[in-house]
Amino acid sequence: MDNSVGTVKPKIMKSNSPLKLISGKELGTVEIVYETYGELNREKSNAILICHALSGNHHAAGYHENDEKPGWWDNMIGPKKPIDTEKFFVVSPNNIGGCHGSTGPKSINPKTNKFFGSDFPIVTVNDWVNSQKILMDCLEIPAWKFVVGGSLGGMQSFQWAIQFPKKIKNAIIIAAAPKLTAQNIAFNEVARQAIMKDPNWKDGKYMEHATAPNQGLALARMLGHITYLSDESMGEKFGRELKKSKLDFNFDVEFQIESYLRYQGEKFAPNFDANTYLLMTKALDYFDPVKDYGDTLFQKIKASNTNFLVLSFTSDWRFPPIRSKEIVRLLMNCKKNISYAEIKSGGGHDAFLMENHDYFEVMSNFLSEN
Amino acid sequence: MDNSVGTVKPKIMKSNSPLKLISGKELGTVEIVYETYGELNREKSNAILICHALSGNHHAAGYHENDEKPGWWDNMIGPKKPIDTEKFFVVSPNNIGGCHGSTGPKSINPKTNKFFGSDFPIVTVNDWVNSQKILMDCLEIPAWKFVVGGSLGGMQSFQWAIQFPKKIKNAIIIAAAPKLTAQNIAFNEVARQAIMKDPNWKDGKYMEHATAPNQGLALARMLGHITYLSDESMGEKFGRELKKSKLDFNFDVEFQIESYLRYQGEKFAPNFDANTYLLMTKALDYFDPVKDYGDTLFQKIKASNTNFLVLSFTSDWRFPPIRSKEIVRLLMNCKKNISYAEIKSGGGHDAFLMENHDYFEVMSNFLSEN
Repeated sequence: MDNSVGTVKPKIMKSNSPLKLISGKELGTVEIVYETYGELNREKSNAILICHALSGNHHAAGYHENDEKPGWWDNMIGPKKPIDTEKFFVVSPNNIGGCHGSTGPKSINPKTNKFFGSDFPIVTVNDWVNSQKILMDCLEIPAWKFVVGGSLGGMQSFQWAIQFPKKIKNAIIIAAAPKLTAQNIAFNEVARQAIMKDPNWKDGKYMEHATAPNQGLALARMLGHITYLSDESMGEKFGRELKKSKLDFNFDVEFQIESYLRYQGEKFAPNFDANTYLLMTKALDYFDPVKDYGDTLFQKIKASNTNFLVLSFTSDWRFPPIRSKEIVRLLMNCKKNISYAEIKSGGGHDAFLMENHDYFEVMSNFLSEN
Repeated sequence: MDNSVGTVKPKIMKSNSPLKLISGKELGTVEIVYETYGELNREKSNAILICHALSGNHHAAGYHENDEKPGWWDNMIGPKKPIDTEKFFVVSPNNIGGCHGSTGPKSINPKTNKFFGSDFPIVTVNDWVNSQKILMDCLEIPAWKFVVGGSLGGMQSFQWAIQFPKKIKNAIIIAAAPKLTAQNIAFNEVARQAIMKDPNWKDGKYMEHATAPNQGLALARMLGHITYLSDESMGEKFGRELKKSKLDFNFDVEFQIESYLRYQGEKFAPNFDANTYLLMTKALDYFDPVKDYGDTLFQKIKASNTNFLVLSFTSDWRFPPIRSKEIVRLLMNCKKNISYAEIKSGGGHDAFLMENHDYFEVMSNFLSEN
């Protein structure tokens, strides 16, 4: 654990000020579970916000007690790693609507004293940024030195620059897009239908029935996995390799890829929450700052002093490089200081979570020079 | 209906010779429902076999009584169309394992006097070709002038050239691949799991329970649709267009693409059979003639006099041009007479079903010159 942040304990922030959401609804109280790595300097100028993606959470680095595996971005965050915890104070929250401790569908709805379940209001990227701002204020951080995220996390990073341009010095937007395409929404919709057609869905009140739509959630995860990996990486990893030495000609697993996908689904479902999965996919669908802000978007970004690093991966077909370039073009139109790199990788969309020399070098350079 | 084959009636062929399947199992009797268009000439030299894809059937052209829409390839087959019924005798069967009249899961298993359901044996492309050969013999056709198919149909066309090289003068292989990739299999596996996790699946014996896993089948179809259309065509057709004038921030349909997909799933499921869907996806998974035949594949193809036309579509991401080129390369190694065209189209995989000037011209030319 030489270059690990070591053992970490999540903290919790409670805010009793109501949070007004984009949908028009309101959360009376907000709890955000988060982790921090490194130390805030005296000038409070070295804070980095980590924004997680669809299935992520606050546990980005280091180990919880009894953890076998470290947090989801442990290769990126730690002493002498690109997000260097010897230099930076890293804050990693679980988003509201999540299922790992922050106010979400698994929380008790104070109005009914029952689990929120599907009554939990739809949250958007905009709402997340507002809730992260509450956390920032609570931690007495005047501005983020960097806001960093991949995929849905990259959208939050982008949104920070729009929503609080004076509170973010640098935005790192990895493997993201300025909005989903019809195909992206279509995949999300199939995942949602898989969950909501599960007989244990119970209109989203499954916790009250002490059950969970885990088969639907597993299906959603299986489908998600196909879009996270590239055709290329799946081919290299599994190809047409058989599970046994010969074909059985039945509906059990024949090919290794089937085995892998089933395993991914079955492993994921009991450790996640179906309502959260639905909320996360909706936040993705709704994200569209160009539409939300119209002309004021350009004014807002132009008026900010935020520097941008936009990164994409060659084999990512969920948000391919062409989608990241849409963000770059938008920022260029605002005459912003932008760095863009297209990283060669066979890892597909998940490449943003993988160790990669070029990727880490670009990250290190941007983080140390800005 | 000037250039339509007009009203058509399906015919049925019954064979009481057992059909031995690749899996080692056997079908005691085989019924194949089929349609024919045009007339067999005196020399019996103008017969074309049409092979259908995953959800296709024998009704390729013309109208059944009370049909509002014609058969699935009516734009391709008819008087003065590329597959010109004034010149050719066109035979279009429903594959065994299908759900439109040929022996399949909805047939009665003579051994049990119950529906086959999931007891229907796995069928492969090889088995289909064998069953189509029975039909050919029954119709006293000495050899096919052309065997034509798109997608899974293209695989059958390819297989004909391998399995009965003396019985096929020309093979037209459209939007196909010599085998599925891991990603292709992965999509099939998610579709299968969606069906088999439906509470109405009942181990595939749903017909005995007078029910059907239609929610799972609808999910499978929704997912299929994403892979049939291109990102581009979905974008043009739906983009981020909303169903209503503004967002509702709930889990009802927000975007048109969601509405379209749900409709496609709901329309398809009651008119198809889940066991057939499973069988078709397995036939796709198993198809791999290079592996099945090894070195003898090259000898077989070399020894044949079959000419080949291989076609692909630029925006097809299910079986993109690069996959068709694998077939071309394989045939070139056998020093065969091959024509290959990559057709510009935004239609995705489904482009093989769509009218397109270049596509139809290439088809017409190949069909009239060979």
